[in-house]
Amino acid sequence: MTTPFFAVAVGHTTEILLTLFIMLAAAKITAEIFERLKQPAVVGEILAGVLIGGSVLGWVAPSEFTNTLAEIGVIFLLFTVGLETKPSAIFKVGKLAAIVAVLGVIVPFVAGYLLMLAWGAANVQALFIGTALVATSIGITARVLSAMGLLDAPTSRIILGAAVIDDILGLIILAIVSSVAEGRVDYIEIVTTIALAVGFTAFIALVGAKVLTNFAPTIERLRTSDSFFVFGLVLCLGLSVAAAYIGIAAIIGAFLAGMALAEASEKNHDMHKQTSAVTEFLVPFFLVNIGMQLKLEVFRDTSVIVLAIVLTILAVLTKLIGCGLGAMSLGWRRAAQVGMGMSPRGEVGIVVAQIGLSLAVINDSLYAVVLFMAVATTLIAPPFLKWLFATEKAAKDDVDSDDAGGIVAQGDFCKIG
Amino acid sequence: MTTPFFAVAVGHTTEILLTLFIMLAAAKITAEIFERLKQPAVVGEILAGVLIGGSVLGWVAPSEFTNTLAEIGVIFLLFTVGLETKPSAIFKVGKLAAIVAVLGVIVPFVAGYLLMLAWGAANVQALFIGTALVATSIGITARVLSAMGLLDAPTSRIILGAAVIDDILGLIILAIVSSVAEGRVDYIEIVTTIALAVGFTAFIALVGAKVLTNFAPTIERLRTSDSFFVFGLVLCLGLSVAAAYIGIAAIIGAFLAGMALAEASEKNHDMHKQTSAVTEFLVPFFLVNIGMQLKLEVFRDTSVIVLAIVLTILAVLTKLIGCGLGAMSLGWRRAAQVGMGMSPRGEVGIVVAQIGLSLAVINDSLYAVVLFMAVATTLIAPPFLKWLFATEKAAKDDVDSDDAGGIVAQGDFCKIG
Repeated sequence: MTTPFFAVAVGHTTEILLTLFIMLAAAKITAEIFERLKQPAVVGEILAGVLIGGSVLGWVAPSEFTNTLAEIGVIFLLFTVGLETKPSAIFKVGKLAAIVAVLGVIVPFVAGYLLMLAWGAANVQALFIGTALVATSIGITARVLSAMGLLDAPTSRIILGAAVIDDILGLIILAIVSSVAEGRVDYIEIVTTIALAVGFTAFIALVGAKVLTNFAPTIERLRTSDSFFVFGLVLCLGLSVAAAYIGIAAIIGAFLAGMALAEASEKNHDMHKQTSAVTEFLVPFFLVNIGMQLKLEVFRDTSVIVLAIVLTILAVLTKLIGCGLGAMSLGWRRAAQVGMGMSPRGEVGIVVAQIGLSLAVINDSLYAVVLFMAVATTLIAPPFLKWLFATEKAAKDDVDSDDAGGIVAQGDFCKIG
Repeated sequence: MTTPFFAVAVGHTTEILLTLFIMLAAAKITAEIFERLKQPAVVGEILAGVLIGGSVLGWVAPSEFTNTLAEIGVIFLLFTVGLETKPSAIFKVGKLAAIVAVLGVIVPFVAGYLLMLAWGAANVQALFIGTALVATSIGITARVLSAMGLLDAPTSRIILGAAVIDDILGLIILAIVSSVAEGRVDYIEIVTTIALAVGFTAFIALVGAKVLTNFAPTIERLRTSDSFFVFGLVLCLGLSVAAAYIGIAAIIGAFLAGMALAEASEKNHDMHKQTSAVTEFLVPFFLVNIGMQLKLEVFRDTSVIVLAIVLTILAVLTKLIGCGLGAMSLGWRRAAQVGMGMSPRGEVGIVVAQIGLSLAVINDSLYAVVLFMAVATTLIAPPFLKWLFATEKAAKDDVDSDDAGGIVAQGDFCKIG
């Protein structure tokens, strides 16, 4: 079949369709295997990416299309998580979440920076690696908590609140470090970014939710079928774009869009189901894409392996210590839940590494080390999280004396994928 | 904001997100306006594309990403339509659909070919324009019928069956004409394509549906959440890819995947709702993208306008006459419904034009003429279809003596977008 007909009509799009088919099928087969082994499906889907990616089978390679689809996937994931997160619930834990976030930013940043200097890296390199350790992958954590039906647990609220805050902090630090790497520091730009980020978040969370709750009946009366679902899609994309233009991550905008609609959509089960369906379709591409980024061949160099392992341990420990310290008022078990919940780095760490690479500050090996750290923390956290929550649940089932911290077991509805 | 941080992390993906936001918002706003004017929303969404595209406002341009997303959108649309189409229902109208399809291919092809020769075009050019007139845009027609809750009407079954057959015929003719344009005719390849296309369609419709109906309980017992929905997604992508590799359009594979699952999924309302949600998200990108393809500026040349209008009239009349003749046994009103239902050309006509352009057989003006014809037939058909079905419905409501041809008014469930 070599006619131009096939080259044009079948060629490019078919290749992408084939890639999507392989990614989705591989994700779901490994997810099924992991479910049967009583392991989190999210880990299976990421490992599916490692398996089908360039390092092992080489069936698919990340492309601009899969990267963008992955980004849209994580945007919808955060939107769905936002829909389950009422602003009032976050405000309740706001102060604690802020402390957790700030300590969880400072400790990993400083530790990563010092480790790299001790390893013999240049100052700018060390700054970048420190920055890559800062931001929690709210997507991975949310996916794990959601699949376990734990989005309503009190520690989950703190984790999600703190993850939003540390993503914002992380992106501000990245902007500063990038300026340093370029040999210039534009204070006005940095201050503007900070003001916009804080103002945008506060505005959506405080004003947006109230306005939307008042407007919900009007939206539901529109002639367009499933108007509330459609409105949600438009708002999700719109605030994602707005957040990106302001200088915070698009996923934060999507989360805020969901949060602003959480109360308005509370009784609209159809809208929640429809949004979950879109998310369920798109999220596997996000997870598999993370796995596909891992290039195993650079680890032939032993020093790269050692650094990757050391950095991964440091990444987990610094969030456990930093965030755990912040949450110590909840008792050690919940502090550990919060610390472990904050430890997956995922996409933000990878974005930092990509920017470092594009500025020629980071070389291929350091890039692989950051990718390894991001993927490894993502793989390590879920089983520990599951165990930490399970032991609490068991303890609670035995004693049944602690009401305020009850874990609300949600139904299949929240198992978005 | 000119730091590389924004260039990398915000730049490309944000641009795509912004494009998606504008496309979705514009589609839904015009759809709402059209619904209020009692016009089909699908026309509004295509016109939204013309409006925001390069010809009028210039806010967005079709890119590789939007083209691929549009293709995935129409794939999901056909999958959803397939889910509502039980093979047994198609087999009932199979013979009639085949006659409608064959007459609806021959008449437009010959008429288009002769018109172009009379217009002074070269032989190969005339062959390409004839080919562009062959294939009905099953996507557009299905969208209109679905939005009107008419997928169950007997003429709808004939239209969908005939549209599947004429798409297959159209793609075979395209393969032949492309060979001619390249100055070689490979009979073995042509025969292989025909055999594969027919064999694949027959196999899925006859064997696939039965196998899947037997396997449905097993699929529903899998541990993966919403396993039947997930299985449907994988099958849809898989058969789309298979169809494209065999040499028929990906959308035919998606339609067959849906049809094969139609009986197995009949009682699984969740799966239907979830699939509809994904479709509802993706289809606007397909519709807006069609509108965005229309470049109004080439029509400054009066002869281009005249040819475009003549070809559009010919496109509608030849399907009305060809398909109408085939369906005359149903009475003139239903024959007209079938003929009008077959007249939108949409994406297949555009693909033919793109291939003609890539082979340097068709120039920019002829390309624009085909695009105009594809968009115009798409715009013309829905109001006429609505009117043809409404008058039948009114006549039926008055007399109420014709049972066999009852139009089943479906609920919002089928209003996929």
